[in-house]
Amino acid sequence: MTQSLALARWMLALCCLPLLAQAAPVPDAILQQAKQLRDQALVDDTAYTLLRDLTTQVGPRLAGTEAEARARQWSVRALQQLGFDRDQIRIERFELDGWVRGEEWARVTAPYPQPLVVTALGDSGSTGPIPVEAEVVLFESIEDVEALTEGALTGKIAYVSHAMGKTQDGSSYAYFGKTRFDGPGIAASKGAKAIMIRSVGTQSHRMAHTGSTKWPEGQTPIPALALSQPDADQLERMAADGETIQVAIKATPRFVGKTRSANLIVDLPGSDRGDEIIITGGHLDSWDLGTGAVDDGAGIAITTAAVDLIRRSGLQPRRSIRLVHWGAEEVGLLGAKAYAEAHADELDRHQLGSESDFGAGRVYNIGADLPAAADPVVDAMLRLLAPLGVGQTARDYTGSSGPDLSPLNDLGLPSFRLLQDGTDYFDLHHTPDDTFDKIDPEALRQNVAAYAVFLWIAANTDVNFRAQDPAE
Amino acid sequence: MTQSLALARWMLALCCLPLLAQAAPVPDAILQQAKQLRDQALVDDTAYTLLRDLTTQVGPRLAGTEAEARARQWSVRALQQLGFDRDQIRIERFELDGWVRGEEWARVTAPYPQPLVVTALGDSGSTGPIPVEAEVVLFESIEDVEALTEGALTGKIAYVSHAMGKTQDGSSYAYFGKTRFDGPGIAASKGAKAIMIRSVGTQSHRMAHTGSTKWPEGQTPIPALALSQPDADQLERMAADGETIQVAIKATPRFVGKTRSANLIVDLPGSDRGDEIIITGGHLDSWDLGTGAVDDGAGIAITTAAVDLIRRSGLQPRRSIRLVHWGAEEVGLLGAKAYAEAHADELDRHQLGSESDFGAGRVYNIGADLPAAADPVVDAMLRLLAPLGVGQTARDYTGSSGPDLSPLNDLGLPSFRLLQDGTDYFDLHHTPDDTFDKIDPEALRQNVAAYAVFLWIAANTDVNFRAQDPAE
Repeated sequence: MTQSLALARWMLALCCLPLLAQAAPVPDAILQQAKQLRDQALVDDTAYTLLRDLTTQVGPRLAGTEAEARARQWSVRALQQLGFDRDQIRIERFELDGWVRGEEWARVTAPYPQPLVVTALGDSGSTGPIPVEAEVVLFESIEDVEALTEGALTGKIAYVSHAMGKTQDGSSYAYFGKTRFDGPGIAASKGAKAIMIRSVGTQSHRMAHTGSTKWPEGQTPIPALALSQPDADQLERMAADGETIQVAIKATPRFVGKTRSANLIVDLPGSDRGDEIIITGGHLDSWDLGTGAVDDGAGIAITTAAVDLIRRSGLQPRRSIRLVHWGAEEVGLLGAKAYAEAHADELDRHQLGSESDFGAGRVYNIGADLPAAADPVVDAMLRLLAPLGVGQTARDYTGSSGPDLSPLNDLGLPSFRLLQDGTDYFDLHHTPDDTFDKIDPEALRQNVAAYAVFLWIAANTDVNFRAQDPAE
Repeated sequence: MTQSLALARWMLALCCLPLLAQAAPVPDAILQQAKQLRDQALVDDTAYTLLRDLTTQVGPRLAGTEAEARARQWSVRALQQLGFDRDQIRIERFELDGWVRGEEWARVTAPYPQPLVVTALGDSGSTGPIPVEAEVVLFESIEDVEALTEGALTGKIAYVSHAMGKTQDGSSYAYFGKTRFDGPGIAASKGAKAIMIRSVGTQSHRMAHTGSTKWPEGQTPIPALALSQPDADQLERMAADGETIQVAIKATPRFVGKTRSANLIVDLPGSDRGDEIIITGGHLDSWDLGTGAVDDGAGIAITTAAVDLIRRSGLQPRRSIRLVHWGAEEVGLLGAKAYAEAHADELDRHQLGSESDFGAGRVYNIGADLPAAADPVVDAMLRLLAPLGVGQTARDYTGSSGPDLSPLNDLGLPSFRLLQDGTDYFDLHHTPDDTFDKIDPEALRQNVAAYAVFLWIAANTDVNFRAQDPAE
């Protein structure tokens, strides 16, 4: 740049600055407040304490069980202790079909007798009291099972492998996750007596990853187990020896009929734009194997701490800020669906949202698909978050705002999310190892800071995030 | 160094070289052969294949069980396939008191109900069919339990913590290991109904570490469980909340009476010094939770591959090289004791030995406490091993030559060992996670190379390793 050009630009900037400041979609005072909230979050351990208490004092909290109900009681108590009025906290109940784990084991009986580390997938069928014993047929991928003719697996146990690797954004889960989501239904449709899958996870410890599976309409659930990675390796090595593998399985999970779950909701009411909602939260239920630290105690703790930080500041947002502790996420986004249904008449008042449900890794990016008018708002967030390691946004992000907000995305809530580094997320996801000791307190604070900045800026702008850009 | 001094030294070295070579305790030809063996080992995957097969085709092999017997059959078959004569392979049987694991679980019943990940220690007592439920009393260390008056724990469950950290040489195990070795006996002597200890291990996964415990003479075994590290943390957090903790335990291991184990022995007979023995090997039994890859499949594989490399070379050692697959190490060095007893009349013919029983980490040091005359022999080994990362020896090493050689050390076998980097050893030790996928093939080859060099040089020198230095 030449010196004269630089001078001209500087003069231009100088004379236009007051005008720009007035027209700014995020006023300076709001930026200053957001910065203060951010800096407070970075030295505040509210989230860490909340997460410690939830994972310790409640522990595992499977959807629809009394443990999940205890978790809700814990939430109410924790919010009150922070200073929220009990009257502000709403509990919105809904029903679900309960399922609970029973006894579960598997054992190679031939050619090399030895136990396997397994766990039943959510909604797995039961073997009943008599173990199932059968030959195992191995498949590299679920596509190989899908290609079989009907009845091809009659009397057999199917084993399905996959090769999910680590990805920072968790995108590998979408592809390889179908081994678990769809695999059992597909194997059952081919006549299999039971199915074992390589755990959908990225660690090499002797722990199996549970998680939900989907049965096709009318399909009777068969026993569906995940093997730990080392056990999957073991089975594949046996097969490589050219031997026919025989496995005995016992799994006695039960469908327990109608049970209840609920969403917990608390608002920081807005002022002049108080009918517009900026929504955040996490899901309170967890799988039953671990204590749900990264999935999703972290999300509960991060978003609750961020909203509480704003509450404690005494500042009133212009838009209302809504915190939700969703119920029954793991078993099919049931809380999310119940929320969308119960709030059908105010869905278009949801301006923007981000759920924290991808562990406790640092926020490294903002994913957004917003109207052009919102660019300066996202830029303002980034200016405050870049010093925390949050880089340029993915402006073409078309993902959801989080699993529990995805029904709202389907109904017009724009795509927006604080994206977390999930490189190690699937090491712990849905295993017994999802426990509090895995949490990095500094990364947790960084998340709270990012959420505080997002919430405060989004709640204090006139920009309509739901506006449609004119068609290009 | 001045130039003239350097020149003088060079001339001295030049004129004395032939003389020194003749007088060398390790002839050049032997060094050359050792170097060739080393270099072959570095490109040979015999050990890796052996370890793959043992851990896959046998899997867990608890002392005294049919699984350990299958492991012995596997050893015989594997040795024959390598090319050893069946007639050379001796099986020396001995009796032991068998113990097998049963059902086992623990659950916090108050204040925060939730399951705990536990496993019974070897020789744990049983709760019987009715779970034991009692208040837990927490202790920071076993010394705190020892300080109690008799009967102080009557009706209570003791929980004992410790703070074992990672050490490269595994020395922390000697100190903190007593939590497991002695803790249960001490707690029982104070009247405890049961004991739970923080696992003696160094990882933070949801896996408990089993291992042997010692009951004082006349003490009836009580249920003795290890908690995974995250579960130990959890219990300590509950205690930090100031709450009284109640736990229910069920553990039904059984003492199964007299069973059998055995040592397997194969020699490469020596020539002119064939009545002298250089001994090596590992132990074939493992705990029942994992497949015994690092403990001690690795030792079996490394030493078997090293001895086989020498056998395959067609070279005959001057001293005999003995390979032992010991039985029943984990349950009290029973194979080691049986060996010492069965070979009482030839113990003084054991010149030197090193057992590989500290995982599959790289050899980084030689520990030796040998007569001064042996220094050039150790130097010769080091010269060939330094390029593999084996540094200066610990000449004051007074440890054993390996657990299964410790009875021989007590009876005059000099202290000598190829020391392995065990920084991560206690991450896997005695857990379900001790599986083949944890093995680094390159480190395994480095171990084989180190053993081949050690064996070949030790077996081809006139130096008497058992000689006593004159008192200083």
